[in-house]
Amino acid sequence: MASKNLLLLAGDGIGPEAMAEVKKLIAAMNDKLGSDFVTDEGLVGGCAYDAHGAAISDADMAKAMAANAVLFGAVGGPKWDAVPYEVRPEAGLLRLRKDMELFANLRPAICYPALAASSSLKQEVVEGLDILIVRELTGGVYFGEPKQIIDLGNGQKRGIDTQVYDTFEIERISGVAFELARTRRNHVTSMEKRNVMKSGVLWNEVVTQTHKARYADVKLDHMLADAGGMQLVRWPKQFDVIVTDNLFGDMLSDIAAMLTGSIGMLPSASLGAPDAKTKKRKALYEPVHGSAPDISGKGIANPIAMIASFAMCMRYSFGMVTEADRLESAIAAVLDQGLRTRDILSEGMTEVGTTQMGDAIIAKF
Amino acid sequence: MASKNLLLLAGDGIGPEAMAEVKKLIAAMNDKLGSDFVTDEGLVGGCAYDAHGAAISDADMAKAMAANAVLFGAVGGPKWDAVPYEVRPEAGLLRLRKDMELFANLRPAICYPALAASSSLKQEVVEGLDILIVRELTGGVYFGEPKQIIDLGNGQKRGIDTQVYDTFEIERISGVAFELARTRRNHVTSMEKRNVMKSGVLWNEVVTQTHKARYADVKLDHMLADAGGMQLVRWPKQFDVIVTDNLFGDMLSDIAAMLTGSIGMLPSASLGAPDAKTKKRKALYEPVHGSAPDISGKGIANPIAMIASFAMCMRYSFGMVTEADRLESAIAAVLDQGLRTRDILSEGMTEVGTTQMGDAIIAKF
Ligand SMILES: CC(C)[C@H](C(=O)O)[C@@H](O)C(=O)O
Ligand SMILES: CC(C)[C@H](C(=O)O)[C@@H](O)C(=O)O
Repeated sequence: MASKNLLLLAGDGIGPEAMAEVKKLIAAMNDKLGSDFVTDEGLVGGCAYDAHGAAISDADMAKAMAANAVLFGAVGGPKWDAVPYEVRPEAGLLRLRKDMELFANLRPAICYPALAASSSLKQEVVEGLDILIVRELTGGVYFGEPKQIIDLGNGQKRGIDTQVYDTFEIERISGVAFELARTRRNHVTSMEKRNVMKSGVLWNEVVTQTHKARYADVKLDHMLADAGGMQLVRWPKQFDVIVTDNLFGDMLSDIAAMLTGSIGMLPSASLGAPDAKTKKRKALYEPVHGSAPDISGKGIANPIAMIASFAMCMRYSFGMVTEADRLESAIAAVLDQGLRTRDILSEGMTEVGTTQMGDAIIAKF
Repeated sequence: MASKNLLLLAGDGIGPEAMAEVKKLIAAMNDKLGSDFVTDEGLVGGCAYDAHGAAISDADMAKAMAANAVLFGAVGGPKWDAVPYEVRPEAGLLRLRKDMELFANLRPAICYPALAASSSLKQEVVEGLDILIVRELTGGVYFGEPKQIIDLGNGQKRGIDTQVYDTFEIERISGVAFELARTRRNHVTSMEKRNVMKSGVLWNEVVTQTHKARYADVKLDHMLADAGGMQLVRWPKQFDVIVTDNLFGDMLSDIAAMLTGSIGMLPSASLGAPDAKTKKRKALYEPVHGSAPDISGKGIANPIAMIASFAMCMRYSFGMVTEADRLESAIAAVLDQGLRTRDILSEGMTEVGTTQMGDAIIAKF
C-alpha cells in the first residue's frame, strides 16, 4: 500500500512552533502504531518571500499538488507589511487554495466543555455549541476580475474588486453542506445578501434548487448575512451547518470561532472535488488562528488548533476515523486535566507552554 | 425663522407602529414646548410598491430631497419576497441613500445599564459599552457596476457585483470618523481586508494619509475586518470609533448592535455632505431593527430605537443638543423604572406595549 504523503508548510510566526508538535505526534504514530506517514516540508508566506521572492515557490506548489494532504501553519507578520501586494504572505495561501481547487472550507466551531467559561459570551449561550461553517473558498470577491487600483489622475485612485459566482460553484459547495448536514443534525442555513447583491440572488436560487432536487430531506433555512452574524452572537445553538460565500464565510467563521472562547483551539479543512478515478480529494488543513507575531518564538503558543487540524486530516483525507476521534478525545482530556496555554488560562488552571501541551496530548493519545 | 420640515417614511411591518410614538412626541413638543416641527408623510418599501409599483415614488423622493430631515421606519416582509429585484422594498431605502448622497452612516452601539444583563455576552464585557460605527453608505459593492446576473447557457448563470471605492469617498468618510472621534475618546479603528481586496489596499492608504494630513492628534489603528469582527465579540470596549466600508459596515454594525442586548434599542443617522451655502447636511434617521413582520400589528414592538433615532435627528440636523440629551435620559429613566417591551423583557420587570412605552418616555421627557 502506498504511504500517506504529507506536505508540511509551517509558515511564519507561531506556525513552526505549532507544527513542531504535530511533527512529534506523527513521529510517535509512525514509531509506536506503525502508521505510514511520510512528510516533506516547504516554505510559504513571509519566509518563502525571504528565500525566493515569492509567497510560495513553484517547486513547493508542485509538492503541494502531489501530496495526499497539506498541513498549513500560518502566514504573515509586520516584517512583510510593506512587500508588494502580489508577493505578500497571504498570496501563498490564496495560491494554494486556488491551484489545488480547494473550494470547500470546513470550519467547525466547537465549544470544549472545559473552556465554556472562558468565552466572552454567557456560558449557557455557548456550552455544548457544535456548529460547522461551510465556506466557499475559491470564488467570490477573493478571485474575481477585475481586481485592481486605477490611477484616475488629480490625486484620485479607484480600487476595484469583483464578486463573481457561477451556478456550478454554488451547487457544489451547497452539495458539500447538505451532505455534511446529513451526518449531523440535518439542518443547513444558507447566508447571503440577496437584498443587495446579484450574486446573493443567484446564491439563494441555486441553493434552493439544489436542495429541492437532491437534498429535500435536509432542513434548509435562508438568512441575510448581516442578520446571520447577529443571530450567531445572540443564540448560536440555533445553527447546525451554515453555508456561505468566501467573504461572508471569512467574517462569519471568525465570529463563530470567537464564540467558543479561543481561536487557539479551532482547526479547519479545505477540500477539493473528488478525483474522477481515485475518488481522493486534494486537501489542506490549517488552524483558524493567524501567525500571532506578538507571541511567536516565546514557546507559549497554543498548538491545539494545529493538532486538531491534523485530526481533521486523518478523518477527511485518510479515513482514519478512530484515530481522529482518539486525538480529539486526547485534547479534551488534557483540557479536563486543567492544562492551559496562556491564551486560554483561567483561575485555578495550570499554565503550560507549547511543547508541554503537545507532549501532554501525545501522552493521552 | 423657517420651521423644521420632517418627512416621515414609516414603511412596512412595525415601522408605522414605532413611528406613531414619534408622531405623538413631536405633537407634544410642538404643543407644550413651542417647537416648530412640520411633518409630512410618504410611502416607502412594500407599501409603496403596493400603491405605486415602485419602492418609493418620484414624488416622495422629491419630498425627501426637500425636507430638512427624513425619519425612516423599516421596509420589507414576506408579502414582497417575490417582487422583482428592482422594485423590492429595500430598493426604496437604497435609492434614498444614493439620491440624497447620504454617505456617512453613524451607528452607535450603546449598552444601557438597565439592559446589560440581557445581552448574550457577559455583563462585564458589555456594561458601559459606547462605540460608534461610521459606515460608508453610498459606495462599495452596494452600488458598483456591473451588478447583474448573466445567463451563460447550459443551465449556468453568473452573478456579478462590483466593489468600487474612489479616493475622495474614503477621504470624506474617514474625515467624518476622525471629527467624531475628537468629540469622544479620540480613537479611530479602520477596518478592511487589504490582504485580499484592492479596494482594501486603497482604503488603508487613504485613511492613513487623511490621518497624517489632518487628524494626526487622533489615535488611529488598522484592523482586518475579520479580525475586527472577532475583537468586537471578544472585547468590544477596546473600540471608540470604527470606520469601515458599506458591506463590512453592514455586518459589523449589526454584530455591534447585538452585543448591547437588543437591536430594538439602537438608532442610526445617515448624513450627506454639508451644503456649500447653507452648511446643512441632508439626513435620514432610522432604527437599526428591521420591519419584524412576525410581531407587526400586535402592539408589542419596541419603539425605543425609533424614538432614539429622533433624538439623533434633533442632535445632528437641528443642533437641539439639550432636547436630544433630555430625550435620551428619558429613555434611560423609563428603563431604570423597569418598563420593558417584550423583546427586552427579563425577570422582575414590567411588560408594556408599544404605546405605553412611548407614553412613558414622553411623560419623562
Ligand atoms: C489570511 C487570509 C488571506 C485568510 C482569508 O481571508 O481567507 C484568513 O483570514 C482565513 O480566514 O483563512
Ligand atoms: C435593508 C438593507 C438593504 C440594509 C443594508 O444592507 O444596508 C440594512 O441591512 C441596513 O443595515 O441598513
